[in-house]
Amino acid sequence: MELIFNTADELDPRGHYDTLKGKIMASLFFESSTRTRLSFESAMHRLGGNVIGWADPSVSRYGDPTRGETFEDTIRMVDDYSDVMVIRSPQTGLNYYPYIAADIAIVPVINAGYRLPAEDMEHPTQGLLDIYTIRREKGRIDGLKIAVRGDIRYDRTIHAWLYGLARYHVEILLACPDGGEPPGKYLDYVKKNRATYRKVSLEDAVREADVCFVSGAGSYRGRKLDQLGEHERVDAMKYIEEQGIDLHKLKGAKKDLIIMNDLPRSSIHGFTIYPEVDSSPYAAYFREAANGVRVRMAIFSLIVP
Amino acid sequence: MELIFNTADELDPRGHYDTLKGKIMASLFFESSTRTRLSFESAMHRLGGNVIGWADPSVSRYGDPTRGETFEDTIRMVDDYSDVMVIRSPQTGLNYYPYIAADIAIVPVINAGYRLPAEDMEHPTQGLLDIYTIRREKGRIDGLKIAVRGDIRYDRTIHAWLYGLARYHVEILLACPDGGEPPGKYLDYVKKNRATYRKVSLEDAVREADVCFVSGAGSYRGRKLDQLGEHERVDAMKYIEEQGIDLHKLKGAKKDLIIMNDLPRSSIHGFTIYPEVDSSPYAAYFREAANGVRVRMAIFSLIVP
Amino acid sequence: MELIFNTADELDPRGHYDTLKGKIMASLFFESSTRTRLSFESAMHRLGGNVIGWADPSVSRYGDPTRGETFEDTIRMVDDYSDVMVIRSPQTGLNYYPYIAADIAIVPVINAGYRLPAEDMEHPTQGLLDIYTIRREKGRIDGLKIAVRGDIRYDRTIHAWLYGLARYHVEILLACPDGGEPPGKYLDYVKKNRATYRKVSLEDAVREADVCFVSGAGSYRGRKLDQLGEHERVDAMKYIEEQGIDLHKLKGAKKDLIIMNDLPRSSIHGFTIYPEVDSSPYAAYFREAANGVRVRMAIFSLIVP
Repeated sequence: MELIFNTADELDPRGHYDTLKGKIMASLFFESSTRTRLSFESAMHRLGGNVIGWADPSVSRYGDPTRGETFEDTIRMVDDYSDVMVIRSPQTGLNYYPYIAADIAIVPVINAGYRLPAEDMEHPTQGLLDIYTIRREKGRIDGLKIAVRGDIRYDRTIHAWLYGLARYHVEILLACPDGGEPPGKYLDYVKKNRATYRKVSLEDAVREADVCFVSGAGSYRGRKLDQLGEHERVDAMKYIEEQGIDLHKLKGAKKDLIIMNDLPRSSIHGFTIYPEVDSSPYAAYFREAANGVRVRMAIFSLIVP
Repeated sequence: MELIFNTADELDPRGHYDTLKGKIMASLFFESSTRTRLSFESAMHRLGGNVIGWADPSVSRYGDPTRGETFEDTIRMVDDYSDVMVIRSPQTGLNYYPYIAADIAIVPVINAGYRLPAEDMEHPTQGLLDIYTIRREKGRIDGLKIAVRGDIRYDRTIHAWLYGLARYHVEILLACPDGGEPPGKYLDYVKKNRATYRKVSLEDAVREADVCFVSGAGSYRGRKLDQLGEHERVDAMKYIEEQGIDLHKLKGAKKDLIIMNDLPRSSIHGFTIYPEVDSSPYAAYFREAANGVRVRMAIFSLIVP
Repeated sequence: MELIFNTADELDPRGHYDTLKGKIMASLFFESSTRTRLSFESAMHRLGGNVIGWADPSVSRYGDPTRGETFEDTIRMVDDYSDVMVIRSPQTGLNYYPYIAADIAIVPVINAGYRLPAEDMEHPTQGLLDIYTIRREKGRIDGLKIAVRGDIRYDRTIHAWLYGLARYHVEILLACPDGGEPPGKYLDYVKKNRATYRKVSLEDAVREADVCFVSGAGSYRGRKLDQLGEHERVDAMKYIEEQGIDLHKLKGAKKDLIIMNDLPRSSIHGFTIYPEVDSSPYAAYFREAANGVRVRMAIFSLIVP
């Protein structure tokens, strides 16, 4: 991680390099994505490389064994056409695509996020850029109190983030609803490494933390909002309202607290961070998004042969 | 405009330049487009730059506040990943996307066309390339009689074109059906500037003009053809037939008249310019399309930092 | 062909060249494709060029005269924006798109595959790369016995391949079901040139050949599997099972036989080549796919002005 972060520090995300001139990134998104896909593509272009692939999950018949070519054969093909693959798994079915591809391909494979089952959902490059943002904003990671607010059972970014933060001397404050904790394997990994964690209330997360990460508002107690019964839904909507951060809720926070979020910070259920926070000194989430290009440039620089 | 046109004159649309080497254009089409999108992308590549983004309006959930991220947050993200944005608004809903983006973004934003309401529909780069084509074909703009035939109430190209032509000493001949005139604000702008206008018949437009621009055949008296009642539809189809230019209708035209059209020049309702005109000396519309790359190269050259 | 093959021999599909720096390939896929499209795009990038266009057949309203612009006008537009066009026809309707485009365009046009009617279905660059693969794997083409197994009435690759192989002193062994032979014009061309052909059984194809090409399993006796009646379907499925190559069926083959396939080698009806063959010395099909980039680089090198 430190190697990636040091490399990222040296790179200008608006600069232009010839490092990967003539190299080709295969952008294989079996689930559509804008933020992740465009930041990978921007990173590749900044380093002088090119992009082939697909942005549209409707092309995901490739790799669907009931409709045609096996995923393995698709990867063997793309392996011949590219120098690095960026793969996001589809929303349904078995989802170990990046791992299967890494077994088969000669070129390096980057996991751009996968889903299901909960205990294996990870989005490693997003986790990396979030930890990098902490280091960049705070000048250090060790010694910080780092909170996360929200239902994170299915939050693939937080899962990857926990794996990464585990390697630092930090205290992780979990402000999750009951049932919305991360799967045990991530917490076990934290325990076995350098970090510690404890559960806190939503209020204490804001009050005690140096860094407060806000998770999305799409699920509650480990279930999608639209799968909840009427009664649970009332609870969930109340929780989402409690969770949404506005300036009022930031009273009592440390003066140098930073609020982070991997965006989007809004959904059909409302904002997890209200726009009024954007112009406050706490708001680090747009700089965090910008760091996506920098960290992905660093990863490409380090792994593309 | 003259700066853009002079710059365009110096550029070879089949040439290759390093002017924008390493720069990234974000191509954000919330309404699908082939001609406009490909000519912007071609222009960027000719100048040595790269392209990220989406071609497909199905990605337009971005910016739709009922489904997820706000448009503003999407723009903040793309702002980090690119050096210039080219934005076409969706066909539905509020449509000031290019203007909202220009307020938020640090990088320059180019309006690639937006719709509704009629009095604010504009397609500025198309208007510019059409005026550039007049200058290139005729050697000058001042002093010309420039006609437009068709229902132009919702013609976003003509709206932008009127803003531009208003700055020249030209006489604009409007051959529109009743109700198919451009919104008053464009005509007011013409009046307050150097140009003049008057209404003419379809026949007189061809007979008197040095340049005759042909508008699309998708609407009649300011309403879409498929929204018309049975009786009005008969009138509309009759009008479309009267409007369609063939060689017969060009009898009596000035010898050096040029026919222009921003293409397509056909729809399910027929041709606005019949193919038999293509090989006549009047046909300037394919050269006009080719000028799209040249003018967009000029715009990029002038605004991308 | 020999010029293309010699050029391909000199090119490194993982290398980077400035040969086509600043050139633009228009990738016009009216039928979606992954393998062909990505290998063309990869080839263009390896030579230093760029790509515009569309990957998605939903954009194929362009060229559909019932919905808008004529195909001819679309091509006139793209002609201005690019230096070479790669066109795949849609699955329906009249399908001579690459030929129509070649008539209109100033830039060179490459046929990336078209369909229907059977006697005109061809996929020339795939045919070329398959013949190139024979030369590369065997060191020569003349003197070989080259078999093809499967229903090839509608196999556009095999049609192009027959045109190409006809020019060499080879014996072509056709192991096709009755009614699944290639249209007469291709066999006539073979007869009038240097090659010969005869019908053989599926077993003899494997036993006698130096090269055995396996066709897809999507049709039987010249009809799509899902258009067959219940009784015929039973026959067809039985045939597909007989046709699928596993290690057992390769007993008795020449020691240096190579198995080829233009991939995918699986469909909802099963495998035409079972994965157990992949690690055998017979398997040339993945190297064949990799040759796609090399041969397409050669074609671009030779024709893009």
